[in-house]
Amino acid sequence: MEATLIKSLYRETQNYINQTVTISGWVRTIRDSKTFGFIELNDGSFFKNVQIVFGDALDNFKEISKLSVSSSIIVEGILEETPNAKQPFEIKAAKIAIEGLSDPAFPLQKKKHSFEFLRTIAHLRPRSNTFSAVFRVRSIAAYAIHKFFNERGFVYVHTPIITGSDCEGAGQMFKITTLDLNDVPKDHDGKIDYAEDFFGKETNLTVSGQLSAETYALAFRNVYTFGPTFRAEKSYTARHAAEFWMIEPELAFADLEDNMEIAEDMVKFIINYVRENAPEEMEFFNKFIDNGLSERLDNVVNSDFGRVTYTEAIDILKKSKENFEYPVEWGIDLQTEHERYITEKVFKKPVFVTDYPKDIKAFYMRLNDDNRTVAAMDLLVPGVGEIIGGSQREERLQVLTGRMAEMGLNEEDYWWYLELRKYGGTRHSGFGLGFERVIMYLTGMSNIRDVIPFPRTTGSAEF
Amino acid sequence: MEATLIKSLYRETQNYINQTVTISGWVRTIRDSKTFGFIELNDGSFFKNVQIVFGDALDNFKEISKLSVSSSIIVEGILEETPNAKQPFEIKAAKIAIEGLSDPAFPLQKKKHSFEFLRTIAHLRPRSNTFSAVFRVRSIAAYAIHKFFNERGFVYVHTPIITGSDCEGAGQMFKITTLDLNDVPKDHDGKIDYAEDFFGKETNLTVSGQLSAETYALAFRNVYTFGPTFRAEKSYTARHAAEFWMIEPELAFADLEDNMEIAEDMVKFIINYVRENAPEEMEFFNKFIDNGLSERLDNVVNSDFGRVTYTEAIDILKKSKENFEYPVEWGIDLQTEHERYITEKVFKKPVFVTDYPKDIKAFYMRLNDDNRTVAAMDLLVPGVGEIIGGSQREERLQVLTGRMAEMGLNEEDYWWYLELRKYGGTRHSGFGLGFERVIMYLTGMSNIRDVIPFPRTTGSAEF
Repeated sequence: MEATLIKSLYRETQNYINQTVTISGWVRTIRDSKTFGFIELNDGSFFKNVQIVFGDALDNFKEISKLSVSSSIIVEGILEETPNAKQPFEIKAAKIAIEGLSDPAFPLQKKKHSFEFLRTIAHLRPRSNTFSAVFRVRSIAAYAIHKFFNERGFVYVHTPIITGSDCEGAGQMFKITTLDLNDVPKDHDGKIDYAEDFFGKETNLTVSGQLSAETYALAFRNVYTFGPTFRAEKSYTARHAAEFWMIEPELAFADLEDNMEIAEDMVKFIINYVRENAPEEMEFFNKFIDNGLSERLDNVVNSDFGRVTYTEAIDILKKSKENFEYPVEWGIDLQTEHERYITEKVFKKPVFVTDYPKDIKAFYMRLNDDNRTVAAMDLLVPGVGEIIGGSQREERLQVLTGRMAEMGLNEEDYWWYLELRKYGGTRHSGFGLGFERVIMYLTGMSNIRDVIPFPRTTGSAEF
Repeated sequence: MEATLIKSLYRETQNYINQTVTISGWVRTIRDSKTFGFIELNDGSFFKNVQIVFGDALDNFKEISKLSVSSSIIVEGILEETPNAKQPFEIKAAKIAIEGLSDPAFPLQKKKHSFEFLRTIAHLRPRSNTFSAVFRVRSIAAYAIHKFFNERGFVYVHTPIITGSDCEGAGQMFKITTLDLNDVPKDHDGKIDYAEDFFGKETNLTVSGQLSAETYALAFRNVYTFGPTFRAEKSYTARHAAEFWMIEPELAFADLEDNMEIAEDMVKFIINYVRENAPEEMEFFNKFIDNGLSERLDNVVNSDFGRVTYTEAIDILKKSKENFEYPVEWGIDLQTEHERYITEKVFKKPVFVTDYPKDIKAFYMRLNDDNRTVAAMDLLVPGVGEIIGGSQREERLQVLTGRMAEMGLNEEDYWWYLELRKYGGTRHSGFGLGFERVIMYLTGMSNIRDVIPFPRTTGSAEF
């Protein structure tokens, strides 16, 4: 059907003043007196509503006066400027057709609901201001990421979701099967007979596309993944979900320095793009969700990110007078309290911590000449802590297999990964960015369940 | 590291003529005589190679002469035009540094390999011309889709991959579990005790994001999904994979006509965008993979897609003198032979077939006034058959629950889906586009295994 979008009315108001327009949408609020009334209408195209004024000249005035919240209607009327009102214009309705009446029991009435309650109506919550803003920002941020990499010639790779190996090493995995769980087939030795399973072997949901992405970086030079990843660790925190989206760029002929440069550019690009393309939503977040948001984002886009080695960071932490819950010693994995101290108190801006002890990092990270540390980098940001983890990858076959042996990994499981070093390997680097972490950072929302349309967490896979 | 991309050398040659440039990449071919040699170098940024000329003035001439295919090198030299040669320019090397030597056993030597063989080295095949072209086109097509919807204000929704319901109705599903398959916990009644499973209930991999997408369309008006979907049906055809990506737009205040318009615009946009942004790759496909490709794509972008109802299509098929393997009768599901006859012989262009018998379509499709057909549409294209399937959705609660009862579906499983009709439902429509089908159509590749980086099919989840 032909209808003008409310977004157009706001963005190109001059084209519509005193013109007849037709719009369609959902009633957010309605109030009426005997002879006239007001409807706040939202059509989904834009964060803001349009005010509709209707009077008893309408044939169906009585019916319209009684409309329940969330009913859908089609309005024809004249757009008039309202220089003395809060909103810049309103529509004087000449005709209002009812598209779909809402049951008056609609649970999202004007009164404020808790985010916890809204999770129980995840199919309706995007009709509220907060979640309309969150999920539009999520969409815009996703586009920003594709745009950033596309403009730089990166090839987007769909790495597999179902993985035939359990050796990605980043966490516990979900099993995938078509076997009958009531009667799992066993072989002579009493072991599960995977020959009868769909893939003829054990399969899991991926925890990272990195190893696959490396194969494509060594063909296309610069590549990235952007897809769902999974963790089967039981966790009830506000920061962990079992299903989340991750961005994993991988760059050939690139060292740790190149890696940090692209990460810094990317973070700034995403923030700038979202602010430019969702100014109303970002204003809303700053006003109602997190008062410090706008200032924090300003600080990120306007600063050169700091650099500090892990060893230096440990020194700084030890010399600080802070009373940390977790004691600081060279060799420990930094805790959120340490990360936040470094980025919030010391640097007061985002900072890359580099060159971590090899023993707390993955086997594929490039060993430094000191033999104790690896060319890893984590990006810490004020207010959150780590949002990016990356490294230069070990391209030297002997060093890599040596590290694998140290860590008890089986070379056969990684035959194709090792072949990348055999057939024209190059220095290469990459990192991972948790998409939901970015959305939380951009919006100020503090629970990961509130930035995923239908979250999957320990004990919960509703809808 | 600082290096100029080969793509820039080709696209902005004028800036580099007679200049010293540094490039890095992989040796595709090498030939040499006593005092000089030629290397075809590819750096992953571009489909074409650059010719490097090197002579015995190089310190390491001997070493370079013996480089194995796929070795990675860094070349510094002067770019010179070659007006009388096949290639527009070449680089006279002043320095060549070896980044990584390739084992001479590198399996992708110049001779032609079968696609079947190349699937066994899926980690290396993107280094060949064909797969470099396929996977760059895949990336560009993905971007085209995001760009198309973003420019039209559609919100991108990440619908869940793990689904708590087995009622999406589009096919057999993979189970997801963290239960110990060696010892599946059972309750008193001998049934599987899902209380011990990660989500506390049975979960599966999604077969479609549509039902979830509808919830967001009724908030954001126009939305789309673009993510992985799964089918556990055993199949060994060239057109079916267990894991594939799907695009599912959903539009509120939109009927079947609106749906077809957006589908037609989208298909044309993707083709035009890919041809503009990958002209070298598309030329390659037309020359080496499918001679009719270019003409077929011309035909698609330049035609107004046809429209025919299912009932008319059946009449046409019955009146034809064709000897179909599957007999034609009103009520049958159209087979590929029927679809191809309609689109290739009758219309000679893409055609939407609409208004299918309700009994062969899903419960959520809107019932037409004749009570026999539903407002469905399939887009058939010459050379392939169906690439899009969509419908207007049933927005009338009573009609929908009536259809569900007819089909034996349980209302409780769909409580949130039904609530969309209760709380301000609107006419709405959407469709699904199989991403791999599009890539096959764009490239002329005839096996779905050759357009997915690491394909998952019945019996196969390698890499």
